[in-house]
Amino acid sequence: MKVQTATRKRDLLDTDLLMTEQDIFLGVDIGGTNTKFGFVDDSGKSFEILSFATRAERPFADFVGRLAKHVSEGVKKLPEKYILRGIGIGAPNANNLTGKIEKASNLSWGTVDVVAEVSKYFKVPIVITNDANAAAMGEKKFGSARDLDNFIVLTLGTGLGGGIFINGQLVHGAGGHAGEIGHTIVQPDGRQCGCGRRGCLETYVSATGIRRTVFELLSDRTTPSMLRGISFEELSAEDISRAAQAGDKIAELAFEQTGRILGMKLADFVAYSNPQAIIFTGGLTNAGDLLLKPVKRYMEEFLLKIYQGKTEIFISKLREKNLAVLGACALVMEKILTQEMK
Amino acid sequence: MKVQTATRKRDLLDTDLLMTEQDIFLGVDIGGTNTKFGFVDDSGKSFEILSFATRAERPFADFVGRLAKHVSEGVKKLPEKYILRGIGIGAPNANNLTGKIEKASNLSWGTVDVVAEVSKYFKVPIVITNDANAAAMGEKKFGSARDLDNFIVLTLGTGLGGGIFINGQLVHGAGGHAGEIGHTIVQPDGRQCGCGRRGCLETYVSATGIRRTVFELLSDRTTPSMLRGISFEELSAEDISRAAQAGDKIAELAFEQTGRILGMKLADFVAYSNPQAIIFTGGLTNAGDLLLKPVKRYMEEFLLKIYQGKTEIFISKLREKNLAVLGACALVMEKILTQEMK
Repeated sequence: MKVQTATRKRDLLDTDLLMTEQDIFLGVDIGGTNTKFGFVDDSGKSFEILSFATRAERPFADFVGRLAKHVSEGVKKLPEKYILRGIGIGAPNANNLTGKIEKASNLSWGTVDVVAEVSKYFKVPIVITNDANAAAMGEKKFGSARDLDNFIVLTLGTGLGGGIFINGQLVHGAGGHAGEIGHTIVQPDGRQCGCGRRGCLETYVSATGIRRTVFELLSDRTTPSMLRGISFEELSAEDISRAAQAGDKIAELAFEQTGRILGMKLADFVAYSNPQAIIFTGGLTNAGDLLLKPVKRYMEEFLLKIYQGKTEIFISKLREKNLAVLGACALVMEKILTQEMK
Repeated sequence: MKVQTATRKRDLLDTDLLMTEQDIFLGVDIGGTNTKFGFVDDSGKSFEILSFATRAERPFADFVGRLAKHVSEGVKKLPEKYILRGIGIGAPNANNLTGKIEKASNLSWGTVDVVAEVSKYFKVPIVITNDANAAAMGEKKFGSARDLDNFIVLTLGTGLGGGIFINGQLVHGAGGHAGEIGHTIVQPDGRQCGCGRRGCLETYVSATGIRRTVFELLSDRTTPSMLRGISFEELSAEDISRAAQAGDKIAELAFEQTGRILGMKLADFVAYSNPQAIIFTGGLTNAGDLLLKPVKRYMEEFLLKIYQGKTEIFISKLREKNLAVLGACALVMEKILTQEMK
């Protein structure tokens, strides 16, 4: 495979290569612990996803150097006919408008110019966005949202992120910070949040949030529970799912309360932008119907009549397939397409 | 003035008229009590706004007949050179996608096909939307939002309506019902709302909402207040403003609480779509800084750090100038422009 600097297909026509060349895009998903990357061709076919330790405690330049090295190794494994046309990067607190990661709490780099740094290694268009926006873009390009113009993707992991499509476009907002659904307010004097405030949605609805709910319930009630023997550090969302499946009342109630809070907030967002569907992804969705059923029930209960029965909620079919990497590829494919159309 | 059926300017070229013809648009604002209408030319100049009683207790066909009659009379007063190119209509519960008013609570018509009925009298493009969307369109075309791509207009009258612009486009949503900000939830078991649910934002933040807040405060506290001598029916938002200006503690507190609730909900919508500005219009904005100052203070307090100090809130400069009529005109001007570009 070759890395090509030109960005417009028609500049690259070469009669010798014309029959064999194929565009390919790199998607990168920068996480607090690991960074994943992979390649997608323009027919949507994806290639092996690779992963390496992010090591955010080291300087950002060190990370970019290692990313370039790992990508180059990955590239060597691909057939010669592929030409890298662009790089899409999803990362926490990544701002599409500035090209920077801005003080992500689980990356100790402060504010870093990702597009500028990565450009030193690869002379192709580079686009970044936050992980939830990348997931939304992935659903639009390769997933269940292909035919939808108005939908929301929620990433329910350690925190809660949102990616919003309105009128067929990803919403970045005036400052590039749209979709911070995890930091909408459930209760003004509620649970302490990593953002420095209190009562944010993600302190209730996320893998961490449901653990906090279990501990609140264990402190409030005398109900016996198999979760009473597990410390906060050890307790995982999977433990809670397993307990609920086994009929544990505290675990069942934790899902019920999580569903009620999320259902109520989703009803607000339906009233605001009237989406056709809300798609869940992220670790907490492993709970399946335990989560989905109460969310649906409560959202319908809190919806204004005109919206009732008209907004679908489902779990992403791409969540097992590295949606964030696919989405990052989709992002840069979309950008190149838009530029070619101009 | 003539009513012309063709919709595309280039079909209408007539060498005799070419130098004198000028496009004009009709804007109609259907309210529960009165209906206003007026004409705007394509330079944005508006002509006398006229008004007649809606009389929603009579059949809708009767209303349309009277509308056509009043408009025809209005038309006669305009110079001959004007040609009516389109009609924009703002009305409660009007759905842009279906062309219908759908069960508006203060219009007893049920669901009526406005576009079909009005088309019987006028052979020009007709567009409808709800009053808040019309106001947002008016701000975009003729007001302070001319250079903004991401903003919200809130109409604070008897109820609370919202019109949302994202990426330079008015948001209608999947079902045409976006912007129902007045029916987002402040408190699940809160005040009874006209929509049949409880705790909706408009039951706290609107001309009616602040009256309810005053009565709650009067019942809860023993503080002396000049508002203790006024019945619920007699009490107006203006009374509350006057009392607050005179230093009445209950009235001051009512504005403080109204501002806190609205500020908190606005912080949610900033996190969702990251608008650049939030523009207020409607009767309650006569309160000016009494309303604006606490809303701004609380919104900033509830905002995630990345948004702080970046979202403007101000009162529409067009609110005295029949923003709803201007907006309805802007709506149809925009539609015709979009069609000509296709």
